[in-house]
Amino acid sequence: MNKTGIIGLGRFGTFWTRVLAHGWEVYGYTRTIPAQPPCELLSFDELCTLPVLFLCVPIRTMPEMLDRMASRLKPGTLVIDTCSVKMEPVRWMKERLPESVEIMATHPMFGPESAKEGLSGLPMMMHPVRMADARYQEWLHYFRSLGIMVVEMTPEEHDRQAAMSQALTHMIGRTLNAMGIDETPIGTLWYRKLLAICRQVAKDSPELFFDMQTLNPYAPGMRSDFMDAWNTVCTSLTDLSKDG
Amino acid sequence: MNKTGIIGLGRFGTFWTRVLAHGWEVYGYTRTIPAQPPCELLSFDELCTLPVLFLCVPIRTMPEMLDRMASRLKPGTLVIDTCSVKMEPVRWMKERLPESVEIMATHPMFGPESAKEGLSGLPMMMHPVRMADARYQEWLHYFRSLGIMVVEMTPEEHDRQAAMSQALTHMIGRTLNAMGIDETPIGTLWYRKLLAICRQVAKDSPELFFDMQTLNPYAPGMRSDFMDAWNTVCTSLTDLSKDG
Repeated sequence: MNKTGIIGLGRFGTFWTRVLAHGWEVYGYTRTIPAQPPCELLSFDELCTLPVLFLCVPIRTMPEMLDRMASRLKPGTLVIDTCSVKMEPVRWMKERLPESVEIMATHPMFGPESAKEGLSGLPMMMHPVRMADARYQEWLHYFRSLGIMVVEMTPEEHDRQAAMSQALTHMIGRTLNAMGIDETPIGTLWYRKLLAICRQVAKDSPELFFDMQTLNPYAPGMRSDFMDAWNTVCTSLTDLSKDG
Repeated sequence: MNKTGIIGLGRFGTFWTRVLAHGWEVYGYTRTIPAQPPCELLSFDELCTLPVLFLCVPIRTMPEMLDRMASRLKPGTLVIDTCSVKMEPVRWMKERLPESVEIMATHPMFGPESAKEGLSGLPMMMHPVRMADARYQEWLHYFRSLGIMVVEMTPEEHDRQAAMSQALTHMIGRTLNAMGIDETPIGTLWYRKLLAICRQVAKDSPELFFDMQTLNPYAPGMRSDFMDAWNTVCTSLTDLSKDG
């Protein structure tokens, strides 16, 4: 069986180990050794000799991690990131990894919670940053064979769309959590759905939230668009009150 | 079978006719006669002679409707409102209906969409504003027999909790609709849930939204709490950026 390595075994990396176990011999490296490792652990040097490496580290630690890997990778190694934003990490990978190394960008838009019922139909962004087309096609085929709905798009298009969907959802969830919203016996079905979203986004780390909002160049625009729309709705309430 | 009347056969009134058809002979009155009435229609004068009357008219039209009914009702008639806010409508009913008329406040926290799979476990607020306890207990029993989760609370407690749940959900939904958010192939499960909430609140009339926000005395506080929390989250992004 082909070997693949995962760097970073946090909440997502651990989940990703289980996904790749379909068809791959998975090895892992993580700074802090977990009590129950989800796969066989290797030293950083050993892991870097594997032909395929997935990066599941916090976005903000990517530059440092890429610098640490760069000199250790063999020509032809494929490095794949899984970050929730894409333009910056792709730029870092292109700048910091040697030309002899291939690069693929992915963003699995799901995690342990949303994949509870299986991977079928769950969306995942993919983009061949710098790699042989045949190798890219193999990965495309592999993820599709798991039932994942692969969406091919550029890092820029990803960040534009993710700002208006994922980053917006997390902003609303964090805001409602900051407000302290809670169960009520008179909660409508729709309110209960909103509460479920809040409970969910609270499971992701504050660091991921922060990076999603600050490293996606489209996120500030999304935040001000939301604010403008909120104010427009509020103003319409006042204006109509005066008319009525 | 006992007779009950419904005033107002809009989206909710039509749905409510089907609910009450379990155990009641339902008659309706509506200003504009629908192509396919959901029940037998009566003139306004005829309807007012029935022993029980549900009000399913827009909140803003309640005062006018109550004034129109007041002189036509027989002593002992039970008038029940179904408004999405409770303090103001209850005050109007107490002020405008004769002392000989009984009054009950309800807010079914569901509609045709959320009750698609049945009424079981759906919440409904109830409060005996001015009525014999035995009669109130009968209604309590009736709604519970349909599987509805009756929540007994005062109009004030209702408005406080509904501002932070229903009115908040609708504010967010209307804001996202005003922003123009839409499907994206990379939408996470949680974003898709958020989009479903938007699609749903858009089905309620702008009038209901407006009344929910302006006739609930706790709604303005909810809106400013949300705004404060949003700004706090945004500020934390800027502050941490400076630190980093």
